[in-house]
Parts: sequence; structure tokens; C-alpha cells
Amino acid sequence: MKNNHSKLDFDRFSRIGLEEAIYCEFKTGEQVNEILKQFLNKNKHCLLTRLSEEKLNQIDSLIKKKVEYCSISNTAFFNYPDYTLSQDKKVAVLCAGTSDLSVAYEAIRTLSYYGKNSLNLFDIGVSGLWRLTEKLEQIQTTSVVIAIAGMEAALPGGLISQPIIAVPTSVGYGVSKGGHTALNALLASCSSGITVVNIDNGYGAACAALRILSTEP
Amino acid sequence: MKNNHSKLDFDRFSRIGLEEAIYCEFKTGEQVNEILKQFLNKNKHCLLTRLSEEKLNQIDSLIKKKVEYCSISNTAFFNYPDYTLSQDKKVAVLCAGTSDLSVAYEAIRTLSYYGKNSLNLFDIGVSGLWRLTEKLEQIQTTSVVIAIAGMEAALPGGLISQPIIAVPTSVGYGVSKGGHTALNALLASCSSGITVVNIDNGYGAACAALRILSTEP
Amino acid sequence: MKNNHSKLDFDRFSRIGLEEAIYCEFKTGEQVNEILKQFLNKNKHCLLTRLSEEKLNQIDSLIKKKVEYCSISNTAFFNYPDYTLSQDKKVAVLCAGTSDLSVAYEAIRTLSYYGKNSLNLFDIGVSGLWRLTEKLEQIQTTSVVIAIAGMEAALPGGLISQPIIAVPTSVGYGVSKGGHTALNALLASCSSGITVVNIDNGYGAACAALRILSTEP
Amino acid sequence: MKNNHSKLDFDRFSRIGLEEAIYCEFKTGEQVNEILKQFLNKNKHCLLTRLSEEKLNQIDSLIKKKVEYCSISNTAFFNYPDYTLSQDKKVAVLCAGTSDLSVAYEAIRTLSYYGKNSLNLFDIGVSGLWRLTEKLEQIQTTSVVIAIAGMEAALPGGLISQPIIAVPTSVGYGVSKGGHTALNALLASCSSGITVVNIDNGYGAACAALRILSTEP
Amino acid sequence: MKNNHSKLDFDRFSRIGLEEAIYCEFKTGEQVNEILKQFLNKNKHCLLTRLSEEKLNQIDSLIKKKVEYCSISNTAFFNYPDYTLSQDKKVAVLCAGTSDLSVAYEAIRTLSYYGKNSLNLFDIGVSGLWRLTEKLEQIQTTSVVIAIAGMEAALPGGLISQPIIAVPTSVGYGVSKGGHTALNALLASCSSGITVVNIDNGYGAACAALRILSTEP
Amino acid sequence: MKNNHSKLDFDRFSRIGLEEAIYCEFKTGEQVNEILKQFLNKNKHCLLTRLSEEKLNQIDSLIKKKVEYCSISNTAFFNYPDYTLSQDKKVAVLCAGTSDLSVAYEAIRTLSYYGKNSLNLFDIGVSGLWRLTEKLEQIQTTSVVIAIAGMEAALPGGLISQPIIAVPTSVGYGVSKGGHTALNALLASCSSGITVVNIDNGYGAACAALRILSTEP
Amino acid sequence: MKNNHSKLDFDRFSRIGLEEAIYCEFKTGEQVNEILKQFLNKNKHCLLTRLSEEKLNQIDSLIKKKVEYCSISNTAFFNYPDYTLSQDKKVAVLCAGTSDLSVAYEAIRTLSYYGKNSLNLFDIGVSGLWRLTEKLEQIQTTSVVIAIAGMEAALPGGLISQPIIAVPTSVGYGVSKGGHTALNALLASCSSGITVVNIDNGYGAACAALRILSTEP
Amino acid sequence: MKNNHSKLDFDRFSRIGLEEAIYCEFKTGEQVNEILKQFLNKNKHCLLTRLSEEKLNQIDSLIKKKVEYCSISNTAFFNYPDYTLSQDKKVAVLCAGTSDLSVAYEAIRTLSYYGKNSLNLFDIGVSGLWRLTEKLEQIQTTSVVIAIAGMEAALPGGLISQPIIAVPTSVGYGVSKGGHTALNALLASCSSGITVVNIDNGYGAACAALRILSTEP
Repeated sequence: MKNNHSKLDFDRFSRIGLEEAIYCEFKTGEQVNEILKQFLNKNKHCLLTRLSEEKLNQIDSLIKKKVEYCSISNTAFFNYPDYTLSQDKKVAVLCAGTSDLSVAYEAIRTLSYYGKNSLNLFDIGVSGLWRLTEKLEQIQTTSVVIAIAGMEAALPGGLISQPIIAVPTSVGYGVSKGGHTALNALLASCSSGITVVNIDNGYGAACAALRILSTEP
Repeated sequence: MKNNHSKLDFDRFSRIGLEEAIYCEFKTGEQVNEILKQFLNKNKHCLLTRLSEEKLNQIDSLIKKKVEYCSISNTAFFNYPDYTLSQDKKVAVLCAGTSDLSVAYEAIRTLSYYGKNSLNLFDIGVSGLWRLTEKLEQIQTTSVVIAIAGMEAALPGGLISQPIIAVPTSVGYGVSKGGHTALNALLASCSSGITVVNIDNGYGAACAALRILSTEP
Repeated sequence: MKNNHSKLDFDRFSRIGLEEAIYCEFKTGEQVNEILKQFLNKNKHCLLTRLSEEKLNQIDSLIKKKVEYCSISNTAFFNYPDYTLSQDKKVAVLCAGTSDLSVAYEAIRTLSYYGKNSLNLFDIGVSGLWRLTEKLEQIQTTSVVIAIAGMEAALPGGLISQPIIAVPTSVGYGVSKGGHTALNALLASCSSGITVVNIDNGYGAACAALRILSTEP
Repeated sequence: MKNNHSKLDFDRFSRIGLEEAIYCEFKTGEQVNEILKQFLNKNKHCLLTRLSEEKLNQIDSLIKKKVEYCSISNTAFFNYPDYTLSQDKKVAVLCAGTSDLSVAYEAIRTLSYYGKNSLNLFDIGVSGLWRLTEKLEQIQTTSVVIAIAGMEAALPGGLISQPIIAVPTSVGYGVSKGGHTALNALLASCSSGITVVNIDNGYGAACAALRILSTEP
Repeated sequence: MKNNHSKLDFDRFSRIGLEEAIYCEFKTGEQVNEILKQFLNKNKHCLLTRLSEEKLNQIDSLIKKKVEYCSISNTAFFNYPDYTLSQDKKVAVLCAGTSDLSVAYEAIRTLSYYGKNSLNLFDIGVSGLWRLTEKLEQIQTTSVVIAIAGMEAALPGGLISQPIIAVPTSVGYGVSKGGHTALNALLASCSSGITVVNIDNGYGAACAALRILSTEP
Repeated sequence: MKNNHSKLDFDRFSRIGLEEAIYCEFKTGEQVNEILKQFLNKNKHCLLTRLSEEKLNQIDSLIKKKVEYCSISNTAFFNYPDYTLSQDKKVAVLCAGTSDLSVAYEAIRTLSYYGKNSLNLFDIGVSGLWRLTEKLEQIQTTSVVIAIAGMEAALPGGLISQPIIAVPTSVGYGVSKGGHTALNALLASCSSGITVVNIDNGYGAACAALRILSTEP
Repeated sequence: MKNNHSKLDFDRFSRIGLEEAIYCEFKTGEQVNEILKQFLNKNKHCLLTRLSEEKLNQIDSLIKKKVEYCSISNTAFFNYPDYTLSQDKKVAVLCAGTSDLSVAYEAIRTLSYYGKNSLNLFDIGVSGLWRLTEKLEQIQTTSVVIAIAGMEAALPGGLISQPIIAVPTSVGYGVSKGGHTALNALLASCSSGITVVNIDNGYGAACAALRILSTEP
Repeated sequence: MKNNHSKLDFDRFSRIGLEEAIYCEFKTGEQVNEILKQFLNKNKHCLLTRLSEEKLNQIDSLIKKKVEYCSISNTAFFNYPDYTLSQDKKVAVLCAGTSDLSVAYEAIRTLSYYGKNSLNLFDIGVSGLWRLTEKLEQIQTTSVVIAIAGMEAALPGGLISQPIIAVPTSVGYGVSKGGHTALNALLASCSSGITVVNIDNGYGAACAALRILSTEP
């Protein structure tokens, strides 16, 4: 009764250059396992997001052997060939503190999956991203900026000239709980050309960055 | 008592390639007038957004003569030299119906201000942007897509490979009133690499597009 | 002190053709057990929804023997006679991904309880229901469509001519968390004649479909 | 610059049996006028919703002559042939008070546009729809019930066996303001097979009813 | 460092006829224990609300012996003398289903604490309180009605002539989750003279009823 | 087409002792006029609430002559016989400032309509109702307290022993706008036996008070 | 019937050093007039806030002569003696743009009423308060900072060592509309010792500053 | 891959007199451990907030030895020298009940960290802070008041003349759940010069108090 539930889209890459990622949060371990079997049978690789260690451990050992897992971001590469990342770092991934690392790494891992190295700057000062002046020169060597912004979500659109993709995060308490204050504060900054993705969506931010990189010659 | 309230930033352009626009919604006609005088004195030009016709008519006639106004988008170019738009259209501006035109034109006018022509596709089908298949080839000739999305805010991230900047609009009634349903529905689509700006923020979407274009060689 | 808390409505069926289902989420296992005893004493059958496996296991073994349980949907048939489903499939149940399966099966099971077979189409494409064109012909053989719509809740009212009952689901993170974005996005689609039920309410959608089927000759 | 903004969908009817209605709330009088000219040129008729009297009066007099306007519901039939409504009344339109009449008439007029007569029951008792017992027999002669539900939005799903489409309305003050309390109260009633459309969406409810009627032989 | 945190109000009763209840939800077991010791030392009794069984079991055994606990409502009487309830039942406590029992019993136990017997009617029909007609005569023998109203919160203010205190409950899923839909639906019914207390606040409803009874001669 | 829209409930009084009030906010002047004609024809009187002066002036002069209007509360008595208010004042109506007067008078007028005099205490101190100690003795001569509570909505349940019905008002700015903060703050006070009605619902509070008075011998 | 509605608190000053201000937004012109008459009779002065020009013009001319009105902030001094402001400027009032001036002036005027001069810095840079570095030295000469923060509400708690009182403002559109995003963003900054007042509450911020100044020797 | 994630700000103290606290809620035990190691290496001390006992126990035993932990407030002093608190108590910390103690102690501990003793008044009466009159004299000996305000968040700004910093807390159920009702009720009291910090932010309130104390000579 349960087989054939997941019909996967193996052609998406050719259309838009982005494959389908397997979003695992509301899937059972059993469902994830079944999906990976399909990929293995077609000898395809894939990226998994929001895969908890608990679900990882429910996967058949033969399949699990082909999973390369990152526990900070709960992402996994499945059946992935050896790869070399690009020499140059065209994307900067910034975050303001250790609390935002899991979202930052979801972005970094997604970029890696597509072969892109990234300039990763964590915990830029104490009181938020607005004090990143000392790193400005380094950031300006990249083509796109992904800014992971948690409790104090003010972004210095005026300091950076590249495309900026902001990711609000759900850390915080009181009014910050769940990330809606960060989301709204970032949307309020859009006049300077910043764009925003869903709360905690490091994967989506990386996809947006990849779309931008693909417009370069 | 009221003079010198506005200290303008004439150097922003050199830093990030984007000048400051004069956002007029919460300024009085008198305040707008004073700001334009400063620009005239320095012989600078500027872009004004959310300038109602009522406030436009409160501006001194000498200054008003140098205002080029668009009543669909409530934008104005002040003290602007003759200009030619780029031959090629690197930005596509899509919208689903006549109700979203003012936001679409805010984006288009901002692009024009920076010399960028745009491919403008309005009222793409009846039931929202998801049925834009017939225009796909035309859209694929551009480098960035700005999608103005009102009451039925579903975006086909899977059909388009370029960077997509989505602008939710405040049209609609009931749950759609104010644009929050469109905003959230668009944020929910971010996994495919779509990014979002604030509700009705055509200006911000154009700035984001300009940032992306500036990464091209 | 605790007995006789539940006075059940054994006559509802004769009035509207729909029996009362036992909604178990906020009942204790003990309370469910007691209700089932009453049904057994009257030799009646019933449908149970939101019955967790944990509560199922708190039921007396004699009673439990007469429970037919489905762990995907957490529904159960109690004291139910052998049954044959209708040959024809008058209801289509669509969903966009494995994450929405539990809600889909709550609808399917409710239809089964009333003897109705259904055409079940799961995981229709990757990026949401708006790409179901290839299944259109098959869907058009049915009389009612139940569309389970999770994170990307855009429904193609313009493609399908039958009555469409949309069920938003609570899967998703950030702005999608809890299902309110899906709910509102679906309500915004109502102009094309789509109707909506409460978040995750597969049972209610099936009841609505049964009401529609009952208007057919 | 402004012509050709509206590309209309003259083929929708053949596909799903429902034409496109012209939703006028966020269109200017000028934009409505232009759209009607296109319909006149093709000698087609259409339904307009949320057309204020003010905008009606901005329409060219030649075109306006072909508009049949209803000021209770702000709807209009344009270029519509003489018509006879169906003898039988297959849809019941219920509302609880004079405050909900404009929404009720939006539904009634939409049904009329498609040739359907309706059984209209207004102001059913004082304290809401739950006391409609005395009209029950009459209501049971119809195939679909549209229930317009304002400040006290409780619907007696258990009394009526037909499909019920509930329309919350935005009348009310305090917590009722805007219609969200009515909307949520109706969604909470969905377990009995009631379905809901967007706040004030009489048009959508009528379309949903028409879809149901089209499933009848 | 931790002693003397709780300074209790032993005189409140003489002022308004209601003693202070000990609300335990955000107190630790240790804090509850300490408070009870103070009551014991003064040889006073008290009512405890929201006392989980887990916290109950953290209380010193000597003190616990003087606790009379009700696990349906998580209330307890401490150091309470033998008591007889009033012969007559001046308060009716109504609820629509087993899911609302814990709130109903919080009200009933509070009434008992003050010596008031109550007429308890649970699970009045399936689809909510609006179908309580058959019990009407019995209800009319009381002076005050407490109506516990969960998922389908419509109250028949028009059927009952006594003071009605409505308690929304937090049971339910989707839009009903947390009780806000029930709360708002009840507030919308206030025109007929119904009053409302906080979600799940059976204790407050009983206090309000006691205030009303105290106005009787 | 428009006649007979309003079917009025002339028997409600005999059932619960409260007549139906005509709530005018979402009715047109024409609809109000029509309703009053029905009352005149049956030689009945009624209470009208939320009747703006503008609508009052749209009423036929013959009918208007029988309207006794109060512009502070926007209430009116129609076709009302000469009346004497009760000597004693069994209800206290308290409010904290002139901003809440319209709601206070809606309650006072409703009480007058049923012949009840009230003890009216306005602007009790500056910083809210919590400083009403000096009036306490006077208040204690009444049987019920209606407390209109605007921007600083803290109610001293502990000082007053009678039933207290709190009415939050919609005055205020920022977080207070619309009355939701006052409503929630009052609901949070329910543990001391305070009950609450909808925002600005002076009419409902008076009805609740009348219900309580009717329980007295 | 309407006189004596307002009982004013002429003794508050002696208690806490702050007089009562007359908040006019929800008072009628007539009510304001009556209050001022009371002040005149006692030969007292007062501060009025949110007094629109329209209401100002409804005041009796004799009384109006003693009103000193500021149209930017809608504040007025009534019956106020000649005054000299303090030489030194112990409070800094910062705002980010001309849109926030009315709130800034409400604070400045309140300070003036109590004889305090202030250092007023408007339009500090384009993209929000976070770029106020160049004014830092000047700001550090004051004892308290009031920061009026509109659309981009990030406050540099880390740069300033004095007490900082932040006032969110209601300017902005989309998610910023009404000021809730600014409010929440400011509350999220509280870890660095910033405190916040209600949206647009320039008066309250000035009172808080006066409280702090009063702690100085 | 994980080392060097946290770049700490050891110079903040010299700038604003407040060091950086380590907010542990969204850090792993491992991340906290690593941060403390950096402090130890530089022989610096620090304050930790929201450190659960579970995470405390994940810290290396050598490092843990230098941690002084408070389990009521989940705060810790790391590597802190012996210290003496100030003789005088310049800050009053008030709270209304044992449920608010953890927030109160977060403030008290932060003050202690900076050497400030505080006057701690817990559980001031039963029904909220508005009845603190008997403690008034004692409170008036301090320079700043921190008021922790839970379920009944009314603050007597009119009774106290010092600066008042209010901290809403997240205790409570129904509308009080999460602390938003308390937050909004406190913001509504700002006209009397009260200021507010984020929900449960005892740390921020203490920092604000320290800023005020630092303005004293």
C-alpha cells in the first residue's frame, strides 16, 4: 500500500540547473529510505535536507554507506561522486553568531553540492551584522552575499554592492521566537536591494545564489 | 525651525552604484519640496517614490517643472538629463493582472532611472503566474525576472532558470487583504531559489535586479 | 465519577447520511475505550480519527480485536463488517508529496468507511499541484477532487471542472509552520470555485465529498 | 503606454464551464472601461464584481448602456443577452441578517448570470443560522446550500444533508472586525462536511455551487 | 536564598468572599511544597489548580496526606475539612464533549470547594452546544450557567435566560489550536448578554458564578 | 427586490427577558428605516445601537419623530413610551476617562431602556481603574459592576466583591489600537472572577448585567 | 448630562514630578475645551498631546489664545508661563529621517515643557541609525538618548554607553505598516540594555528620560 | 571544521561599561565549552545566560570547576574573582509571584556580576504589582526599579518616581501564553514614563539599569 508514494523528478536539473533536494522533516525514516533506493537504482545522487540523526539511523545500512552526513546542518549527500570545489569563492556566507551555524551550513553544503566553494565568515562581531566593516574588503571579492541573520537582523545594504540574500533564523526568545521579527526586519530593509527567503531556509538562499552565479558568463 | 531636517547622502552612488531614492509617503509636500531644492542647488538628480499627485501639486512651480511624473506608479524623476534606455532587455517584469500595475511600474521606472530597458509582460493569463508557459522563451532571453504577484501568488520556480525576485502586492480582500498571504505564499516557494522583497516594494525589487546585473561583466 | 461522560449520537446517519466519527486527539485512551464499549454493546460500528498508536494500545484487548487500524492516517474502523468498495472511483485524492500522506489517507479511509473507492494520486511532480497536467484526463473521470496541499499551496482551479475541496496541511517551516500560509493561499484561490476545509482535516474533506456524491442521482 | 494591459481569457468557459469575472476593486474606472471595450469588440458578455457606483460612472456612456448594475452587490452584467432563469431552484442562499445582504446578492447574481434561480432566505431568526429549523423542509428541496455567515458564524452541518458552502463576512466589530473570527469559526465546523471560501467571497461560493451542479446529470 | 519567596494573602476571603487559589503551572514542586507548609502552619486550607501528578508526587508525604486530588482537572483541596455540598444545584456546568472535561471539572471542583453543588451536563449532543434544547427545562432550574465550549463554540444565548459564563477551551487542531477561535467566536456572541473568561479558565468561571450567587439574598 | 429582507423576532422578550436590539453599523439608512416601519406597524418599540447621525438623518421624518437619540453613544429608543427609571441603582458603570464615554453610555442607555437606573462613575483617577479605592463604598451599594476599560486595562478584582463585567475599548494607539491589548489584559484577569465581553460592546455588558439582576428575587 | 465627565489629577506632579498630559486623540473638541476651562479656572497649565488642528479650531477663542501649538507634533502648551530652557542639553533626540519628525517633536516638546533643552539630530544618514558614528562624540555629551526608529529599526546599543530609550514609529508599508516590525526589532535589541516604549509614543519616551534625569544629583 | 566559530568581543567593556554575556539557549554544550576555553586562555571572566543544567553538565570538568551556577535563573559566572557587592541597594527588583522568579534572578545575578546589590521584593500581594503601596517607602530608597510582570501586568507608574524598567514574562495560559499580553499591556502603560524590554529579558533589564546608574555621579 505504501510503495510508489514518491515519484521523483530526475529531469529538473536539465531545465533549471538545480536538482530536487529531498526535504526530510515531515517524512518518516522509512519514506526517506525508499526514496534513496530509487536514486540508487537509477544510480543518481541527491542532496537531503533536514535529515535528523535519528532518521539517518533508520536507513538501511547498505544505503547509509553511501550517505555523507553533516550533523551541524542536518544535510546529506547521497551516492555522490568524489568532487573538487571551485578554487575561487564567489559566494560569501555571513552569520552573526554560533546560534545561526546550522542555517549557515545548510547554505554552505548546498553550494558544495554544486561544486561551489564559499567564503564563510561566522560571528562577525557581537551585536549583529551591522559591524562587519573590517571584513568588507574580503567580502567584496565575492559575487553574491548570503547573510544569515538571527536575533538582531539589521543588514547594511548600503555597505555592500553585490546581490544580498538574507536568511532570517528562528533563534531567539520573546518577540524573536520563531524568526518572524527577523523576517520582518529584513523585509523592511528591502529598499536597498536586499532580498529575503523563508525563515531558516539556508538551502533556498544557496539556490538563489546559484541562480545568480549562472547568469555570469 | 523646520529647515535642515533632511541631510541627504549624495555619495551613496559611488559606494554601491545605487543612489538614494526619496520615499515620499510619510513626508509632507513641503518637506519634499525642500529636499528637491537641495538637489537643485547641487545640480543633482533623484528618483522619488510614493509621491501622490496631491503632494506633487504642493511643489513650487519652478521645481515642479523639472519633475517627470508617472501617475500609474507615483514615481518621479527630478532634474533628470535626457536619457536613452539600453537596447537590450535584461530584466523581465511580469505581473498577473491590471491590479498589480502600479507596483510593476515602480520597478520599471526604477530600472529606467538607471538606464535599463525591461521586458514587460502584464496580465499573463487569468489565474496567476503559474500559466506563463507560452511566454517562457521570451522570458528566457533576460538575465533577471521580477515577478509581481498579487492574489494568487504561486511562482513557477521550476520553469525559469534565472534569478527570480518576487514582489507580493497588497491587493485582495479577506485573507488576501494587505498582501500578507501573498508574501507568505511566496516565502514558502523559496526552496526553489526564489527570493522575496517587502509587500508592494517594486523599487526594492528593481534595486535587487540592478545589483545582480552589476555582477555581470 | 467518570462513567457516562460520552452520550453518543446513534441517529445522525439517518438524518444526514454521515455518522459521527470519534475524534480521539484530546480524549484519553480510557475515554476511547469506554466509548467503544458503548458501540459494542449496541453492536454498532464507528470510525475513529487521530487515534495514536499509544492510545490504541491502551484499549482492552477484547475490544482492540475489533479495531482495524491504519498507522499512516491514525484512523480506525471499529466493529466494522466485511465490506466491498465501489467499483468506480468517483473521488480523486491528490497530494503533492510524501509529507502530506497522513492527511490524504485520513480522507481515503473516511471514503472507504462509506464504501467509496478513490483515485489516489500522490507526489504529483516536485513543485506543487500546479503541474498536474499529465494526470488531467485521469482526474476528469471522477466527480469530486480532494486536493491535499502542503507547502506550495497553489491550486489550478482553471484546469479542473469538477468540485474541488482543498485541504491545507500543517507541514512546513518558517512562515509555513502550522499550515496557515497554505490555508490562506487556498482561500485566496476561492474565486475559481475552490472550497477549503480546516488545516489537516482530511476527514472533513471526505465528508464534504460524500455530501456532493449524495446529490448525484 | 497604458493600452493592452489586460489580456483576457475568452476560452475559459469551454474548459471549465465558468467564464472569467472582472474583479474591479483594484482597477481604475479607466481600466474597467478598457476591458469592457475589448468585450464589446468581440461581442462577448461578462460578469463584473466589486464595481463601485463611482467607477460605474466613469465608464463611457455608450458602454455603460450595456451594463445591468445591482447596487446591493456591486455586480454588473455586461453586454448580456435577455435571459430566463431556471424554473427550479437548486441552490439555497441563506443569510442571518440584512448586514450580510451584499455578499448574499453577489452569490445570487453570479448564479443568475449562469441561468440558475435560487431559493433566497434572509435574516433567518435573530441569533444566527443555527435556528433555521422551521425552514428546513424548504431548504431540503435544493441540491446545494450557500450559507452567508456574519457575526455569529455557527453552521448546523448536522441538520442539512446537502453540500454546504459557507461564506464568512467582514461585518462586525471588535474581534469580529474583518471577518477572521467568522472564517475561523466556520473552518472549525468542517468536520461535519461544511466547506468554506474566502471572506465576503459570494462570487466564489456561487462558482463552487455551479461546479457541484455540473456534476449532476 | 530561596525561602520566603511566597507571601500569601490569608485575608482575601473576608474582603471578597473568594480565597486565593494556588496556581501551580509555573511553580516547581518544591515551591508548591513550601507554600503548603505555610498553610499547614497557619492551619488554613486552600485550593490548588493546574497541579500535575508529577508535581503532586514531589510533595512531602506528610503534607501530601492532606491533599485531596482530582486527576481529571488537576486540582487539589489542601487541609480541607469534611464538607457537605449544598442540596440545591444553582450552577449548571455544560460541555460539549469528553475533550472539554478537564476544564469542566476545574469549574466543578472550585464550586465544590465553596460548598456549591452543580448540575453537570456533559457531551450535549455531537455538534456543539447549540443543540441542548432537550435539557433546557433542567437547565432553567439553576441560577447561573457555565458553558465550556471547545471546537464548535456557538452559544444559544437566546434559549437561556440566566447569566451565562462561557469558557473557551484549547482543544482542537488547525485554526482551533490553542483556543483562540473558540474565544473569538464566543466574544462575538456577547450581544446576547453572554460573558467570557480566558481560555481553559474553569476556575475563573466558577469564581464569576460565585460572585453572581453572592448577589442573591 | 429589497423588501422583506428583515424578519424580526418579536417574541424574544418573552423567552429571555431581552428584546432584540437593532444593530445599525452595517445596515444602510434605508434598511434601518424599513425595519422601524415594521416596528411602527406592530406598534412595538425597540432599541437601536451604532446608529450614526448620518443614518439617523436618512430616516423618514414621520418615523424619526419617534426616535429618541443619544449622540454620545449612537443609540436610539424607537417608539418608546414615557418611562421612569428605577429609584435604586443596582448597576455601577465605571470608566477611566472621557475617551471611553461612548461605550459607557451604550451600556447606560441599554440599562435605561429596561428601566434600570445606574451609578455612573467616569474618569476615576488618571492612571486607570486600579485607583478607585475612594469610590469603593459607593460601588459596594450596587449588585453588578460594568467596568469600561481602555488603554490601561487592569481591573481590581480583589477590591470588589460583586459580579464584574469588563468591556475593553478600542481607543489607544500603537499596541493598544483596536482594543486587543485591553481585551487580552482583561481576559488575563479572569482568575479573580471577572468576565469579559467583546471590544466596545457596552450593549452586551448591559444585557449580561440584566441577566444577573433577573436572578435576584 | 455631559459636564463633569473629566476629573483631573492636579496633584500628580508633587508625587512623581510629572504632571498629567491631556491625550486628545479620542476626545471631542468639546471635551478638550471643557478640560481646558477647568485648568483655566484653577489657573493651572497643562500639556496636550495628539491635538489635531481641527480640534484646536473647535476650542473657544478666549481659551485658544492661551494655547501655544506645534503643528509638527500636534502638541500644545496651555496657560503656560514664559519659560527659559536649560542651558545644557542632557537629552539627545535622534531620528533617521523626516518621516519620524512628528514623534521626535512630541518628545522634544514634552522635554521643553519641563524646561529641558535637547540635542536634536535628525536624518542621521540614509539607511538608519546604525550609521551615526560621526555624531558619536556629540551624543556622548548627553545623559540620556531617545532614539526614534522607523522603518529600519536597528539600534547600536554597543556604540553608546548612556541609557537609550527607543521609540518605534508607525511609518512604513507592507510588513512595516503600523510600526509592529520596528517595535519587535527594537525589543530584540534589548540585550544590550536598550529599553522601548509604545509605538509613536514620543511623550512617554520623554517622561522616561525625565525620570532618569531626576535620579541625577 | 568547527573550531574558531566564535570570535569574542573582549573590548566591549571599555567602550560601554558592559561586557558581552554568553547567551547559551541556541548553542550546543560543546559550543559553550569551546567559548569558555577561550575565556580561560585569556584569563577573562564572563557571564552566561540561559545555560540549562543539561548543557552545564556537558562542559569539561576542569572548566566547570570555575563555573558558579544559579539554577533558578540558569545563569553562571565563569572564572569570576571573589567579589563583594555594593553596600547600598540602588536597584529594586520587584515581582508578583513565584512564577516570575527565574526572570527576576536573571536580573539580580546580572547586577551582582557588576557588583551591584539589589533590593529584592517578591510576590508583592496576590493580584499583581498594583498593590505594592505598603512597600513604597522602601522602594523609594533606590534609584531604579526593575518590575518583573507576569500574568497581571499593570504597573503603577503613578506611584513611583524613579525610572521603571518593566520585564514582561512568558508565564500564563490562554491569551497570556508566551508573554505577549503582558508585553502589550506594559507598552500601553508607557505614557507614564515606564519603559519595557523583551519578554523574559531579565538580563537586558539589568543592563538598562546599569546604564542608568552609570549616569549618576
